[in-house]
Amino acid sequence: MNENAKSKLKIIPLGGMEQIGMNITAFEYEDSIIVVDCGLAFPENDMLGIDLVVPDVTYLKENIDKVKGFFITHGHEDHIGAIPYVLRDINVPIYATKLTIGLIENKLEEHEMLGKVKCKVVKYGQHINIGCFRVEFIRTNHSIQDAAALAIYSPAGIVVHTGDFKVDYTPVYGDAIDLARFGEIGKKGVLALMCDSTNAERSGFTQSEKSVGAVLDNIFENHRNQRIIIATFASNVDRVQQIINSAEKFGRKVAIEGRSMVNTIDIAAKLGYLSLPENILIEGEMLRNYPDEQTVIITTGSQGESMAALSRMANSTHRKITIKPNDLIVFSSSPIPGNEKSVTGVINELMRKGADVIFQDVHVSGHACKEDIKLIYSLVNPKYSIPVHGEYKHLIAQAKIAEELGYDKENIKILSSGDVLELDEESAEITGRVQVGNVMVDGNGVGDVGNIVIRDRQRLADDGIIIVVMTLDSVTGLVLDGPDIVSRGFVYVRNSETLMDEMQKVVDDTMETIMDRRITDWSKIKTEVKDAVGEFVWKETKRRPMILPIIMEV
Amino acid sequence: MNENAKSKLKIIPLGGMEQIGMNITAFEYEDSIIVVDCGLAFPENDMLGIDLVVPDVTYLKENIDKVKGFFITHGHEDHIGAIPYVLRDINVPIYATKLTIGLIENKLEEHEMLGKVKCKVVKYGQHINIGCFRVEFIRTNHSIQDAAALAIYSPAGIVVHTGDFKVDYTPVYGDAIDLARFGEIGKKGVLALMCDSTNAERSGFTQSEKSVGAVLDNIFENHRNQRIIIATFASNVDRVQQIINSAEKFGRKVAIEGRSMVNTIDIAAKLGYLSLPENILIEGEMLRNYPDEQTVIITTGSQGESMAALSRMANSTHRKITIKPNDLIVFSSSPIPGNEKSVTGVINELMRKGADVIFQDVHVSGHACKEDIKLIYSLVNPKYSIPVHGEYKHLIAQAKIAEELGYDKENIKILSSGDVLELDEESAEITGRVQVGNVMVDGNGVGDVGNIVIRDRQRLADDGIIIVVMTLDSVTGLVLDGPDIVSRGFVYVRNSETLMDEMQKVVDDTMETIMDRRITDWSKIKTEVKDAVGEFVWKETKRRPMILPIIMEV
Repeated sequence: MNENAKSKLKIIPLGGMEQIGMNITAFEYEDSIIVVDCGLAFPENDMLGIDLVVPDVTYLKENIDKVKGFFITHGHEDHIGAIPYVLRDINVPIYATKLTIGLIENKLEEHEMLGKVKCKVVKYGQHINIGCFRVEFIRTNHSIQDAAALAIYSPAGIVVHTGDFKVDYTPVYGDAIDLARFGEIGKKGVLALMCDSTNAERSGFTQSEKSVGAVLDNIFENHRNQRIIIATFASNVDRVQQIINSAEKFGRKVAIEGRSMVNTIDIAAKLGYLSLPENILIEGEMLRNYPDEQTVIITTGSQGESMAALSRMANSTHRKITIKPNDLIVFSSSPIPGNEKSVTGVINELMRKGADVIFQDVHVSGHACKEDIKLIYSLVNPKYSIPVHGEYKHLIAQAKIAEELGYDKENIKILSSGDVLELDEESAEITGRVQVGNVMVDGNGVGDVGNIVIRDRQRLADDGIIIVVMTLDSVTGLVLDGPDIVSRGFVYVRNSETLMDEMQKVVDDTMETIMDRRITDWSKIKTEVKDAVGEFVWKETKRRPMILPIIMEV
Repeated sequence: MNENAKSKLKIIPLGGMEQIGMNITAFEYEDSIIVVDCGLAFPENDMLGIDLVVPDVTYLKENIDKVKGFFITHGHEDHIGAIPYVLRDINVPIYATKLTIGLIENKLEEHEMLGKVKCKVVKYGQHINIGCFRVEFIRTNHSIQDAAALAIYSPAGIVVHTGDFKVDYTPVYGDAIDLARFGEIGKKGVLALMCDSTNAERSGFTQSEKSVGAVLDNIFENHRNQRIIIATFASNVDRVQQIINSAEKFGRKVAIEGRSMVNTIDIAAKLGYLSLPENILIEGEMLRNYPDEQTVIITTGSQGESMAALSRMANSTHRKITIKPNDLIVFSSSPIPGNEKSVTGVINELMRKGADVIFQDVHVSGHACKEDIKLIYSLVNPKYSIPVHGEYKHLIAQAKIAEELGYDKENIKILSSGDVLELDEESAEITGRVQVGNVMVDGNGVGDVGNIVIRDRQRLADDGIIIVVMTLDSVTGLVLDGPDIVSRGFVYVRNSETLMDEMQKVVDDTMETIMDRRITDWSKIKTEVKDAVGEFVWKETKRRPMILPIIMEV
């Protein structure tokens, strides 16, 4: 199929490489571009005040005529979360499986974009012909249902992209990953495999989601006299299904708490991905009508997110649910790196209220471990290995697996976001770079907070701000009022009168000198005031607050 | 011994309960108070700009005449770090073992307090008579040498305080924990055991420090052709000793990097806690004179601290050491909860430079696990159990161990910092509270940053500040100049001209209305401006920056 190919295939990750989240990759062949996934990232610690981060898609905008469609592997935020931001400018059809489309449409609705973007439901095994490409959806397993790998057929060869996946021979819903199809495509000859690296550092195989069901049953069995509250990921419908199954088995009603959880359950139930025994669900308000030991609450907040339902219960700010000494709280989750401290904080609060808390071993991962990754490589048998999804160390871990399997180092391609990898049967080389980056979303603002604003926020956060304001005579240049000092986030002024008085004196003296020297250039005045105050403050406090002189004129 | 006791013993944790760090506990009997440990805590994520946290010791200040001395269990920051702050006001003698005193004196010197505080070196087995108390130092093991448990003899009974400890039958330096003495004191009859809870959630026994030596030898054996850089805790002299031992065995020179590491090694070597083969240590500058495979660098930065030596190497900002593709970097440590992301960040950077990185299984903990804790309980056999050192969940985990061992729930006392526990052979009850809290240290300032300042910093960090400044006529009340708008950390103004123009209009309109209504009360004017701008900004951006109206008058 590639014999007549004159051009090479370009693979251009626009995000998601060497980071967790913001997965989006362009595949370009001549005048066709297709895009796989369109995710957001959660802000790093130093992105103060930022709500979420979406990819810079300048490259797609500049090549808008080529862009044929988005192919989404599954419905997690790091794969669909940027759709409402990116599709505003690049309005092409979205292809995905049924549940994934359900979640995307829900997101579009929230952004008042429903009906403005074409969303097409694709079945496993179906092929989409689009531009120079043909894209096939292959069944996989993951911590959300309806996950798909993609086989991308281009004139330069076939690329298999696993998306996020695990190998689950006994999934809770639907069938196991279609390993046979991976093998069948492998036999056709695959140019490149882009495989999930998230768990590439972990040895062995990932456990089946079903194994959690047995653990849950056990917990229900051993805590028959307690109310049970279970926190898990809002999007893990299979987990919710298993909790509901245990609840049914042990004669408990189930209440769902947390907006995102209610939302996902709604969509999943409506689309047939959740099977609900009759009358098992009750509203949170109805809990009081049942004895504690006949209820289960499934809730958001397993990551210790401060505004999530479980955190509000822990802090006694939840409107409906009060934690009681006889409650059993189960974290059916593990902390995402970076969330360890907030999770522990919530656990401590719950325990202080006297509750029992189980926070280990009621969870399995949704990502393939080392041996699973080897399995996929063996089935697909690609010429090139392109590890995806993960920080740099995860990509390297997968590269080491590929080396172990006998791949030449030069056939393993570790990409950075923005790299242009050109490949065909002959070669695979990074031939260029395109513009990529973080577009920060803060409230309604998309991209209006950049590095300068963040740097200012960092400074304000560390040491606060000191404002020196004065009114000058526009004719004589003399000080008519002030200089006054106002500070915020610097010191508690009432307890630091001496310091503030001395600072006032420094400012007064500086202005006197300035007047004496007949300096009238405002920028010069500001610089002198700034320097004088800055030096004084550093000497006295070893702090560097932002110093902002403001001059008014009458 | 307690038969004539009329009074009860008071145990008052002034910090360290339900938190990691800031360990300090007062023991009071009639007119005598002794204090065990005097540690700092590292700031929580929401304590913006804060360098460290020390305990509020108002209770000690109010009872200054009773306070007889400080007894320090070991030389870690969470046990000695607050000494320079607390001893300024409460200048009584400090008792500790030799290395601990060495580290304390180094700290006092940095604060120009050396010679102003009495530091007394105590030997294991020695008893100090002080006020109504007698205090005995008992040998333990920990991740720093010279750690001690304390047996505190009071007229109301004996309290055993373990400090931080582990049971190490084969320590690298010195002898194993003096279990026999714990048993001997246990046989006398112990009123209460205050035992380290840090690892109370972990089953089994803690491995010997010596086991790391074998792992290190193995690494040296398998990487004979690479330069080796090993990051570990600056205070873990035994670990450094073992690295030096491996280096000697494999014919490598050793350079030490990082101020705190150099410092500790100096003190430890001077006091005889580190045995240095002749000429094995070289200065960092001399590394270039040796082939890479004949050198080892021991460095700080195992926690991903942004200013530590290893992070500077990773970011190519280290003056002397440049990471090369053939380097092997070993993290001989595990991330302290909360540091996971920064550690991973450094690992990623090192790998990007082509280095091999080993970051697992080259470390053992310095704290007792479940079975070790059971051992101590069995030896000491106290009437009351008072779990110490750890977050609430750790204290609860130890309480569960005590329950397993057959202790009555009412004899297990989970304390909060500030609780006054009064106890004797008859009873143990929380009878009151004393003032406790976090004193935040920011630069030179101790306690001048409080909750209001922190709240302001949080707001500034999240959304920045908008300042509205104007000059009014003192006679007519009319606007003479302005209102002008200045913002920092809000939006990048040059890209948000429309928003800023509209905001200006809102302010102008508001001021016009105010003038029309002849409002001259400044606080009323400020409130109206604040509300108008706040409402506008929220509507447009869904952000809540700090809004600060400033009025000048001519």
